[in-house]
Amino acid sequence: MDFLNQRRTIRKYTDKPIDSELMNRLLTAACRASNTGNMQAYSIVLTTDADIKKQLAPTHFNQPMTTQAPAVLTFCADFNRFTKWCAQRNADAGYDNFQSFIASAVDAIIAAQTFCVAAESEGLGICYLGTATYNAGEIIDILKLPKLVVPVTAVTVGYPAETPDLTDRLPLRAVVHQETYQDFSADDIDCLYSEKENSDFYKKFIAEHNKETLAQVFTDVRYTRKNNEFFSEKFVAVLKRQGFLST
Amino acid sequence: MDFLNQRRTIRKYTDKPIDSELMNRLLTAACRASNTGNMQAYSIVLTTDADIKKQLAPTHFNQPMTTQAPAVLTFCADFNRFTKWCAQRNADAGYDNFQSFIASAVDAIIAAQTFCVAAESEGLGICYLGTATYNAGEIIDILKLPKLVVPVTAVTVGYPAETPDLTDRLPLRAVVHQETYQDFSADDIDCLYSEKENSDFYKKFIAEHNKETLAQVFTDVRYTRKNNEFFSEKFVAVLKRQGFLST
Repeated sequence: MDFLNQRRTIRKYTDKPIDSELMNRLLTAACRASNTGNMQAYSIVLTTDADIKKQLAPTHFNQPMTTQAPAVLTFCADFNRFTKWCAQRNADAGYDNFQSFIASAVDAIIAAQTFCVAAESEGLGICYLGTATYNAGEIIDILKLPKLVVPVTAVTVGYPAETPDLTDRLPLRAVVHQETYQDFSADDIDCLYSEKENSDFYKKFIAEHNKETLAQVFTDVRYTRKNNEFFSEKFVAVLKRQGFLST
Repeated sequence: MDFLNQRRTIRKYTDKPIDSELMNRLLTAACRASNTGNMQAYSIVLTTDADIKKQLAPTHFNQPMTTQAPAVLTFCADFNRFTKWCAQRNADAGYDNFQSFIASAVDAIIAAQTFCVAAESEGLGICYLGTATYNAGEIIDILKLPKLVVPVTAVTVGYPAETPDLTDRLPLRAVVHQETYQDFSADDIDCLYSEKENSDFYKKFIAEHNKETLAQVFTDVRYTRKNNEFFSEKFVAVLKRQGFLST
Protein backbone atom coordinates (compact mmCIF):
# COMPACT_ATOMS: atom_id res chain seq x y z
CA MET A 1 0.00 0.00 0.00
CA ASP A 2 2.96 2.36 0.61
CA PHE A 3 3.39 3.32 -3.04
CA LEU A 4 -0.19 4.64 -3.08
CA ASN A 5 0.88 7.28 -0.56
CA GLN A 6 4.01 8.25 -2.50
CA ARG A 7 2.45 8.56 -5.92
CA ARG A 8 2.64 11.74 -7.96
CA THR A 9 0.86 12.60 -11.17
CA ILE A 10 3.49 12.49 -13.93
CA ARG A 11 3.23 14.88 -16.89
CA LYS A 12 6.68 14.36 -18.46
CA TYR A 13 7.83 11.02 -19.81
CA THR A 14 11.05 9.53 -21.16
CA ASP A 15 11.20 8.20 -24.72
CA LYS A 16 11.10 4.62 -23.50
CA PRO A 17 8.05 2.88 -24.97
CA ILE A 18 5.90 0.57 -22.86
CA ASP A 19 6.52 -3.06 -23.68
CA SER A 20 3.37 -4.62 -25.11
CA GLU A 21 3.60 -7.61 -22.76
CA LEU A 22 3.63 -5.21 -19.77
CA MET A 23 0.76 -3.17 -21.24
CA ASN A 24 -1.28 -6.37 -21.64
CA ARG A 25 -0.63 -7.32 -18.03
CA LEU A 26 -1.78 -3.88 -16.86
CA LEU A 27 -4.92 -4.05 -18.99
CA THR A 28 -5.65 -7.59 -17.79
CA ALA A 29 -5.38 -6.43 -14.16
CA ALA A 30 -7.69 -3.48 -14.95
CA CYS A 31 -10.31 -5.88 -16.32
CA ARG A 32 -10.23 -8.05 -13.18
CA ALA A 33 -11.64 -5.15 -11.14
CA SER A 34 -15.26 -5.15 -9.99
CA ASN A 35 -17.91 -4.29 -12.57
CA THR A 36 -21.69 -4.21 -12.70
CA GLY A 37 -23.15 -7.70 -13.10
CA ASN A 38 -19.95 -8.81 -14.87
CA MET A 39 -21.35 -7.21 -18.03
CA GLN A 40 -18.00 -5.45 -18.58
CA ALA A 41 -19.92 -2.51 -20.04
CA TYR A 42 -16.85 -0.41 -20.74
CA SER A 43 -14.06 -0.19 -23.27
CA ILE A 44 -10.50 1.08 -23.35
CA VAL A 45 -9.04 2.66 -26.48
CA LEU A 46 -5.24 2.40 -26.39
CA THR A 47 -3.67 5.02 -28.66
CA THR A 48 0.08 5.03 -29.33
CA ASP A 49 0.11 6.26 -32.94
CA ALA A 50 1.72 9.73 -33.14
CA ASP A 51 -0.77 11.01 -35.70
CA ILE A 52 -3.85 9.98 -33.69
CA LYS A 53 -2.36 11.41 -30.47
CA LYS A 54 -1.85 14.66 -32.40
CA GLN A 55 -5.50 14.63 -33.43
CA LEU A 56 -6.51 14.03 -29.81
CA ALA A 57 -4.32 16.83 -28.44
CA PRO A 58 -6.76 19.74 -29.02
CA THR A 59 -9.56 17.77 -27.31
CA HIS A 60 -7.30 17.74 -24.22
CA PHE A 61 -6.60 21.49 -24.58
CA ASN A 62 -3.16 20.71 -26.08
CA GLN A 63 -1.76 19.59 -22.75
CA PRO A 64 1.72 18.43 -23.86
CA MET A 65 1.48 14.99 -22.26
CA THR A 66 -1.18 13.97 -24.81
CA THR A 67 1.42 13.84 -27.58
CA GLN A 68 4.51 13.34 -25.43
CA ALA A 69 3.33 10.24 -23.56
CA PRO A 70 3.97 6.92 -25.30
CA ALA A 71 0.33 5.93 -24.74
CA VAL A 72 -3.04 7.61 -24.24
CA LEU A 73 -5.84 5.43 -22.92
CA THR A 74 -9.43 6.57 -23.34
CA PHE A 75 -11.84 4.84 -20.94
CA CYS A 76 -15.42 4.69 -22.18
CA ALA A 77 -18.82 3.81 -20.86
CA ASP A 78 -19.78 1.16 -23.42
CA PHE A 79 -23.08 -0.66 -23.89
CA ASN A 80 -22.42 -1.15 -27.61
CA ARG A 81 -20.85 -4.62 -27.38
CA PHE A 82 -23.35 -5.85 -24.81
CA THR A 83 -26.32 -4.54 -26.80
CA LYS A 84 -25.04 -6.15 -30.02
CA TRP A 85 -24.69 -9.45 -28.14
CA CYS A 86 -28.25 -9.17 -26.82
CA ALA A 87 -29.58 -8.44 -30.33
CA GLN A 88 -27.93 -11.65 -31.59
CA ARG A 89 -29.41 -13.65 -28.70
CA ASN A 90 -33.07 -12.75 -28.99
CA ALA A 91 -32.86 -10.45 -25.95
CA ASP A 92 -34.31 -6.92 -25.67
CA ALA A 93 -31.40 -4.75 -24.46
CA GLY A 94 -32.71 -1.74 -22.54
CA TYR A 95 -29.45 0.14 -21.94
CA ASP A 96 -30.13 3.33 -23.90
CA ASN A 97 -30.84 5.33 -20.76
CA PHE A 98 -29.15 7.48 -18.11
CA GLN A 99 -28.91 4.83 -15.38
CA SER A 100 -27.12 2.49 -17.78
CA PHE A 101 -24.73 5.30 -18.70
CA ILE A 102 -23.96 5.95 -15.01
CA ALA A 103 -23.41 2.23 -14.27
CA SER A 104 -21.08 1.82 -17.24
CA ALA A 105 -19.28 5.09 -16.46
CA VAL A 106 -18.63 3.90 -12.90
CA ASP A 107 -17.25 0.62 -14.27
CA ALA A 108 -15.02 2.47 -16.76
CA ILE A 109 -13.55 4.61 -13.96
CA ILE A 110 -12.98 1.61 -11.71
CA ALA A 111 -11.07 -0.03 -14.58
CA ALA A 112 -9.16 3.22 -15.22
CA GLN A 113 -8.01 3.57 -11.64
CA THR A 114 -7.07 -0.11 -11.41
CA PHE A 115 -4.98 0.36 -14.56
CA CYS A 116 -3.32 3.43 -13.00
CA VAL A 117 -2.51 1.67 -9.72
CA ALA A 118 -1.09 -1.33 -11.61
CA ALA A 119 0.97 0.98 -13.84
CA GLU A 120 2.34 2.93 -10.87
CA SER A 121 3.21 -0.29 -9.05
CA GLU A 122 5.40 -1.15 -12.08
CA GLY A 123 7.26 2.18 -12.02
CA LEU A 124 5.21 3.94 -14.67
CA GLY A 125 3.69 7.40 -14.21
CA ILE A 126 0.17 8.47 -15.13
CA CYS A 127 -1.86 11.62 -15.62
CA TYR A 128 -5.65 11.79 -15.80
CA LEU A 129 -7.15 14.02 -18.50
CA GLY A 130 -10.47 15.28 -17.13
CA THR A 131 -10.93 17.02 -20.47
CA ALA A 132 -12.31 13.72 -21.82
CA THR A 133 -15.83 14.73 -20.80
CA TYR A 134 -15.38 18.37 -21.92
CA ASN A 135 -14.72 17.40 -25.51
CA ALA A 136 -16.28 13.94 -25.61
CA GLY A 137 -17.95 14.60 -28.98
CA GLU A 138 -14.65 15.43 -30.71
CA ILE A 139 -12.99 12.37 -29.13
CA ILE A 140 -15.87 10.21 -30.38
CA ASP A 141 -15.18 11.40 -33.94
CA ILE A 142 -11.42 10.83 -33.73
CA LEU A 143 -11.61 7.43 -32.07
CA LYS A 144 -14.65 6.35 -34.15
CA LEU A 145 -16.76 5.48 -31.12
CA PRO A 146 -20.15 4.01 -32.09
CA LYS A 147 -23.51 4.68 -30.41
CA LEU A 148 -23.70 3.73 -26.72
CA VAL A 149 -19.98 4.47 -26.29
CA VAL A 150 -18.95 7.67 -24.47
CA PRO A 151 -15.49 8.60 -23.13
CA VAL A 152 -15.56 9.31 -19.40
CA THR A 153 -11.87 9.81 -18.71
CA ALA A 154 -8.48 9.51 -20.37
CA VAL A 155 -5.05 8.69 -18.97
CA THR A 156 -1.55 9.31 -20.31
CA VAL A 157 1.08 6.79 -19.24
CA GLY A 158 4.83 6.37 -19.61
CA TYR A 159 8.13 6.19 -17.74
CA PRO A 160 8.57 9.29 -15.53
CA ALA A 161 11.00 12.02 -16.64
CA GLU A 162 10.22 14.19 -13.61
CA THR A 163 9.80 13.82 -9.83
CA PRO A 164 7.35 16.49 -8.77
CA ASP A 165 6.72 17.31 -5.12
CA LEU A 166 3.91 15.50 -3.38
CA THR A 167 0.81 17.69 -3.72
CA ASP A 168 -1.13 18.78 -0.63
CA ARG A 169 -4.37 17.26 0.59
CA LEU A 170 -7.03 18.57 2.96
CA PRO A 171 -7.14 16.94 6.41
CA LEU A 172 -8.91 13.57 6.22
CA ARG A 173 -11.86 14.92 8.25
CA ALA A 174 -12.67 17.28 5.34
CA VAL A 175 -13.51 14.25 3.22
CA VAL A 176 -14.45 11.44 5.61
CA HIS A 177 -17.69 11.62 7.61
CA GLN A 178 -18.34 9.25 10.50
CA GLU A 179 -21.67 7.35 10.38
CA THR A 180 -23.61 10.15 8.63
CA TYR A 181 -22.64 13.42 6.95
CA GLN A 182 -21.53 16.10 9.39
CA ASP A 183 -22.05 19.38 7.56
CA PHE A 184 -19.50 22.17 8.00
CA SER A 185 -19.79 25.37 10.02
CA ALA A 186 -18.01 28.51 8.82
CA ASP A 187 -15.33 27.83 11.42
CA ASP A 188 -14.90 24.26 10.20
CA ILE A 189 -14.30 25.53 6.67
CA ASP A 190 -11.75 28.11 7.85
CA CYS A 191 -9.96 25.46 9.85
CA LEU A 192 -9.93 22.80 7.10
CA TYR A 193 -8.54 25.20 4.49
CA SER A 194 -6.12 27.14 6.71
CA GLU A 195 -3.02 25.04 6.04
CA LYS A 196 -3.60 25.22 2.28
CA GLU A 197 -4.32 28.94 2.32
CA ASN A 198 -1.28 29.74 4.46
CA SER A 199 1.21 27.79 2.37
CA ASP A 200 3.80 29.79 0.42
CA PHE A 201 3.02 27.71 -2.65
CA TYR A 202 -0.58 28.86 -2.79
CA LYS A 203 0.19 32.45 -1.72
CA LYS A 204 2.44 32.69 -4.79
CA PHE A 205 -0.23 30.98 -6.91
CA ILE A 206 -2.85 33.57 -5.84
CA ALA A 207 -0.47 36.45 -6.57
CA GLU A 208 0.42 35.03 -10.01
CA HIS A 209 -3.26 34.95 -10.91
CA ASN A 210 -3.79 38.43 -9.50
CA LYS A 211 -6.64 37.28 -7.23
CA GLU A 212 -7.60 38.04 -3.63
CA THR A 213 -8.26 34.47 -2.52
CA LEU A 214 -7.32 30.96 -3.58
CA ALA A 215 -11.00 30.15 -4.09
CA GLN A 216 -11.19 32.94 -6.70
CA VAL A 217 -8.43 31.27 -8.72
CA PHE A 218 -10.75 28.29 -9.03
CA THR A 219 -14.01 30.15 -9.67
CA ASP A 220 -12.60 32.91 -11.91
CA VAL A 221 -9.77 31.17 -13.74
CA ARG A 222 -9.61 27.39 -13.53
CA TYR A 223 -13.19 26.11 -13.25
CA THR A 224 -15.49 28.98 -14.09
CA ARG A 225 -19.27 28.92 -13.97
CA LYS A 226 -19.38 29.91 -17.64
CA ASN A 227 -17.17 27.02 -18.74
CA ASN A 228 -18.89 24.51 -16.45
CA GLU A 229 -22.27 25.47 -17.88
CA PHE A 230 -20.96 25.42 -21.46
CA PHE A 231 -19.43 21.95 -21.04
CA SER A 232 -22.53 20.70 -19.21
CA GLU A 233 -24.71 21.42 -22.22
CA LYS A 234 -22.11 19.95 -24.54
CA PHE A 235 -21.89 16.70 -22.57
CA VAL A 236 -25.67 16.28 -22.34
CA ALA A 237 -25.79 16.70 -26.15
CA VAL A 238 -23.13 13.96 -26.46
CA LEU A 239 -25.14 11.57 -24.25
CA LYS A 240 -28.17 12.21 -26.48
CA ARG A 241 -26.18 11.74 -29.68
CA GLN A 242 -24.69 8.46 -28.41
CA GLY A 243 -28.10 7.13 -27.45
CA PHE A 244 -27.89 7.18 -23.65
CA LEU A 245 -30.87 9.53 -23.18
CA SER A 246 -33.34 7.80 -25.48
CA THR A 247 -36.08 7.59 -22.88
CA MET B 1 0.33 -6.16 -9.10
CA ASP B 2 -0.29 -9.90 -8.70
CA PHE B 3 -3.00 -9.51 -6.05
CA LEU B 4 -5.04 -7.44 -8.52
CA ASN B 5 -5.32 -10.56 -10.68
CA GLN B 6 -6.29 -12.80 -7.78
CA ARG B 7 -8.93 -10.58 -6.24
CA ARG B 8 -12.49 -11.76 -5.67
CA THR B 9 -15.49 -9.76 -4.60
CA ILE B 10 -16.23 -10.78 -1.00
CA ARG B 11 -19.83 -10.86 0.25
CA LYS B 12 -19.33 -12.71 3.55
CA TYR B 13 -17.22 -11.32 6.37
CA THR B 14 -15.91 -12.55 9.71
CA ASP B 15 -16.88 -10.74 12.92
CA LYS B 16 -13.44 -9.14 13.18
CA PRO B 17 -13.81 -5.36 13.15
CA ILE B 18 -11.45 -3.18 11.13
CA ASP B 19 -8.91 -1.43 13.33
CA SER B 20 -9.42 2.33 13.14
CA GLU B 21 -5.72 2.97 12.53
CA LEU B 22 -5.86 0.63 9.51
CA MET B 23 -9.08 2.24 8.28
CA ASN B 24 -7.44 5.67 8.49
CA ARG B 25 -4.46 4.44 6.50
CA LEU B 26 -6.77 3.07 3.80
CA LEU B 27 -8.75 6.32 3.64
CA THR B 28 -5.55 8.37 3.54
CA ALA B 29 -4.30 6.30 0.60
CA ALA B 30 -7.66 6.76 -1.14
CA CYS B 31 -7.34 10.53 -0.78
CA ARG B 32 -3.86 10.58 -2.34
CA ALA B 33 -5.32 9.41 -5.65
CA SER B 34 -5.70 11.80 -8.58
CA ASN B 35 -8.59 14.25 -8.47
CA THR B 36 -9.80 17.18 -10.55
CA GLY B 37 -7.73 20.30 -9.89
CA ASN B 38 -6.99 19.05 -6.36
CA MET B 39 -10.43 20.33 -5.34
CA GLN B 40 -11.16 17.00 -3.64
CA ALA B 41 -14.78 17.40 -4.63
CA TYR B 42 -15.94 14.15 -3.10
CA SER B 43 -16.75 12.74 0.31
CA ILE B 44 -16.78 9.35 1.98
CA VAL B 45 -19.36 8.44 4.60
CA LEU B 46 -18.04 5.63 6.78
CA THR B 47 -20.90 3.79 8.49
CA THR B 48 -20.22 1.13 11.13
CA ASP B 49 -23.23 1.68 13.41
CA ALA B 50 -25.54 -1.34 13.28
CA ASP B 51 -28.70 0.75 13.33
CA ILE B 52 -27.65 2.99 10.44
CA LYS B 53 -26.48 -0.02 8.41
CA LYS B 54 -29.94 -1.51 9.02
CA GLN B 55 -31.55 1.67 7.73
CA LEU B 56 -29.31 1.54 4.65
CA ALA B 57 -30.07 -2.14 3.92
CA PRO B 58 -33.33 -1.62 1.95
CA THR B 59 -31.63 1.01 -0.24
CA HIS B 60 -29.23 -1.76 -1.25
CA PHE B 61 -32.10 -4.19 -1.86
CA ASN B 62 -31.36 -5.91 1.47
CA GLN B 63 -28.22 -7.52 0.16
CA PRO B 64 -26.96 -9.21 3.37
CA MET B 65 -23.46 -7.70 3.23
CA THR B 66 -24.89 -4.26 3.97
CA THR B 67 -25.63 -5.24 7.55
CA GLN B 68 -23.15 -8.10 7.87
CA ALA B 69 -20.02 -6.15 6.88
CA PRO B 70 -18.27 -4.26 9.69
CA ALA B 71 -18.23 -1.12 7.54
CA VAL B 72 -20.20 0.40 4.67
CA LEU B 73 -18.55 3.28 2.82
CA THR B 74 -20.70 5.56 0.70
CA PHE B 75 -18.69 7.53 -1.87
CA CYS B 76 -20.29 10.79 -2.94
CA ALA B 77 -19.82 13.45 -5.57
CA ASP B 78 -19.52 16.49 -3.29
CA PHE B 79 -19.32 20.17 -4.21
CA ASN B 80 -20.88 21.20 -0.87
CA ARG B 81 -17.63 21.78 1.04
CA PHE B 82 -15.90 23.48 -1.88
CA THR B 83 -18.90 25.74 -2.54
CA LYS B 84 -19.13 26.72 1.14
CA TRP B 85 -15.42 27.59 1.08
CA CYS B 86 -15.89 29.72 -2.06
CA ALA B 87 -18.82 31.55 -0.44
CA GLN B 88 -16.61 32.43 2.55
CA ARG B 89 -13.84 33.66 0.24
CA ASN B 90 -15.73 36.10 -1.96
CA ALA B 91 -15.73 33.67 -4.88
CA ASP B 92 -18.70 32.79 -7.13
CA ALA B 93 -18.85 28.98 -7.11
CA GLY B 94 -20.46 27.70 -10.33
CA TYR B 95 -20.63 23.99 -9.57
CA ASP B 96 -24.40 23.47 -9.59
CA ASN B 97 -24.35 21.85 -13.01
CA PHE B 98 -24.03 18.49 -14.76
CA GLN B 99 -20.35 18.80 -15.76
CA SER B 100 -19.41 19.49 -12.14
CA PHE B 101 -21.41 16.45 -11.06
CA ILE B 102 -19.59 14.26 -13.59
CA ALA B 103 -16.15 15.58 -12.56
CA SER B 104 -16.86 15.02 -8.88
CA ALA B 105 -18.44 11.61 -9.54
CA VAL B 106 -15.30 10.53 -11.43
CA ASP B 107 -13.16 11.69 -8.50
CA ALA B 108 -15.37 9.83 -6.00
CA ILE B 109 -15.02 6.59 -7.98
CA ILE B 110 -11.24 6.99 -8.32
CA ALA B 111 -11.09 7.39 -4.53
CA ALA B 112 -13.40 4.38 -4.05
CA GLN B 113 -11.31 2.08 -6.20
CA THR B 114 -8.08 3.26 -4.57
CA PHE B 115 -9.64 2.46 -1.20
CA CYS B 116 -10.65 -0.99 -2.47
CA VAL B 117 -7.19 -1.79 -3.86
CA ALA B 118 -5.56 -0.62 -0.62
CA ALA B 119 -8.03 -2.68 1.44
CA GLU B 120 -7.45 -5.80 -0.66
CA SER B 121 -3.68 -5.37 -0.42
CA GLU B 122 -4.12 -5.56 3.38
CA GLY B 123 -6.12 -8.80 3.25
CA LEU B 124 -9.58 -7.25 3.47
CA GLY B 125 -12.41 -8.09 1.08
CA ILE B 126 -14.76 -5.64 -0.61
CA CYS B 127 -18.06 -5.63 -2.47
CA TYR B 128 -19.35 -2.72 -4.56
CA LEU B 129 -23.04 -1.84 -4.16
CA GLY B 130 -24.16 -0.42 -7.50
CA THR B 131 -27.54 0.13 -5.88
CA ALA B 132 -26.16 3.44 -4.53
CA THR B 133 -27.35 5.25 -7.65
CA TYR B 134 -30.66 3.32 -7.80
CA ASN B 135 -31.78 4.58 -4.41
CA ALA B 136 -29.62 7.67 -4.03
CA GLY B 137 -32.52 9.75 -2.69
CA GLU B 138 -33.21 7.37 0.18
CA ILE B 139 -29.48 7.19 1.01
CA ILE B 140 -29.35 11.00 1.04
CA ASP B 141 -32.10 11.04 3.67
CA ILE B 142 -30.49 8.37 5.86
CA LEU B 143 -26.95 9.77 5.69
CA LYS B 144 -28.18 13.40 5.88
CA LEU B 145 -26.39 14.48 2.70
CA PRO B 146 -26.77 18.21 2.00
CA LYS B 147 -27.27 19.85 -1.41
CA LEU B 148 -24.49 19.24 -3.95
CA VAL B 149 -23.77 15.85 -2.40
CA VAL B 150 -24.91 12.71 -4.26
CA PRO B 151 -23.86 9.09 -3.61
CA VAL B 152 -22.30 7.48 -6.68
CA THR B 153 -21.25 4.14 -5.25
CA ALA B 154 -21.00 2.24 -1.97
CA VAL B 155 -18.60 -0.43 -0.80
CA THR B 156 -18.85 -3.01 1.99
CA VAL B 157 -15.56 -4.05 3.56
CA GLY B 158 -14.38 -6.59 6.12
CA TYR B 159 -12.23 -9.66 6.65
CA PRO B 160 -13.22 -12.42 4.19
CA ALA B 161 -15.28 -15.37 5.44
CA GLU B 162 -15.43 -17.00 2.00
CA THR B 163 -13.12 -17.75 -0.93
CA PRO B 164 -15.29 -17.66 -4.02
CA ASP B 165 -14.00 -18.86 -7.40
CA LEU B 166 -12.42 -16.30 -9.67
CA THR B 167 -15.19 -14.99 -11.94
CA ASP B 168 -14.81 -15.15 -15.71
CA ARG B 169 -13.86 -12.25 -17.96
CA LEU B 170 -14.28 -11.74 -21.69
CA PRO B 171 -11.08 -11.95 -23.77
CA LEU B 172 -9.10 -8.70 -23.48
CA ARG B 173 -9.82 -7.84 -27.13
CA ALA B 174 -13.53 -7.49 -26.25
CA VAL B 175 -12.65 -4.49 -24.09
CA VAL B 176 -9.38 -3.07 -25.45
CA HIS B 177 -9.29 -1.37 -28.86
CA GLN B 178 -5.99 -0.58 -30.58
CA GLU B 179 -5.55 3.04 -31.74
CA THR B 180 -9.24 3.63 -32.51
CA TYR B 181 -12.46 1.70 -31.80
CA GLN B 182 -12.82 -1.43 -33.91
CA ASP B 183 -16.53 -2.17 -33.96
CA PHE B 184 -17.72 -5.76 -33.78
CA SER B 185 -19.12 -7.96 -36.56
CA ALA B 186 -21.73 -10.59 -35.73
CA ASP B 187 -18.95 -13.21 -35.93
CA ASP B 188 -16.78 -11.20 -33.54
CA ILE B 189 -19.59 -11.14 -31.00
CA ASP B 190 -20.19 -14.89 -31.32
CA CYS B 191 -16.49 -15.54 -30.87
CA LEU B 192 -16.01 -13.19 -27.88
CA TYR B 193 -18.95 -14.65 -25.95
CA SER B 194 -18.48 -18.32 -26.91
CA GLU B 195 -16.38 -19.35 -23.91
CA LYS B 196 -18.82 -17.70 -21.50
CA GLU B 197 -21.88 -19.17 -23.23
CA ASN B 198 -20.40 -22.66 -23.36
CA SER B 199 -19.39 -22.84 -19.71
CA ASP B 200 -21.28 -25.25 -17.48
CA PHE B 201 -21.66 -22.47 -14.91
CA TYR B 202 -23.66 -20.26 -17.26
CA LYS B 203 -25.58 -23.14 -18.84
CA LYS B 204 -26.87 -23.98 -15.36
CA PHE B 205 -27.55 -20.27 -14.69
CA ILE B 206 -29.67 -19.99 -17.88
CA ALA B 207 -31.63 -23.12 -16.96
CA GLU B 208 -32.24 -21.88 -13.41
CA HIS B 209 -33.74 -18.70 -14.81
CA ASN B 210 -35.75 -20.65 -17.36
CA LYS B 211 -34.41 -18.61 -20.26
CA GLU B 212 -33.21 -19.51 -23.79
CA THR B 213 -30.01 -17.46 -23.74
CA LEU B 214 -27.64 -15.92 -21.21
CA ALA B 215 -28.34 -12.48 -22.66
CA GLN B 216 -32.03 -12.94 -21.78
CA VAL B 217 -31.13 -13.48 -18.12
CA PHE B 218 -29.64 -9.98 -18.18
CA THR B 219 -32.36 -8.25 -20.19
CA ASP B 220 -35.38 -10.05 -18.68
CA VAL B 221 -34.27 -10.67 -15.10
CA ARG B 222 -31.20 -8.84 -13.86
CA TYR B 223 -31.07 -5.47 -15.67
CA THR B 224 -34.42 -4.98 -17.34
CA ARG B 225 -35.37 -2.05 -19.56
CA LYS B 226 -38.26 -1.26 -17.23
CA ASN B 227 -36.02 -1.03 -14.16
CA ASN B 228 -33.28 0.86 -15.98
CA GLU B 229 -35.81 3.44 -17.16
CA PHE B 230 -37.43 3.70 -13.73
CA PHE B 231 -34.08 4.23 -11.99
CA SER B 232 -32.94 6.66 -14.69
CA GLU B 233 -35.85 8.97 -13.94
CA LYS B 234 -35.29 8.57 -10.22
CA PHE B 235 -31.61 9.47 -10.44
CA VAL B 236 -32.22 12.53 -12.63
CA ALA B 237 -34.74 13.70 -10.00
CA VAL B 238 -32.07 13.24 -7.31
CA LEU B 239 -29.54 15.30 -9.29
CA LYS B 240 -32.16 18.06 -9.57
CA ARG B 241 -33.07 17.87 -5.89
CA GLN B 242 -29.40 18.05 -4.86
CA GLY B 243 -28.80 21.08 -7.08
CA PHE B 244 -26.60 19.58 -9.80
CA LEU B 245 -28.98 20.45 -12.66
CA SER B 246 -29.65 24.08 -11.77
CA THR B 247 -28.77 25.42 -15.20
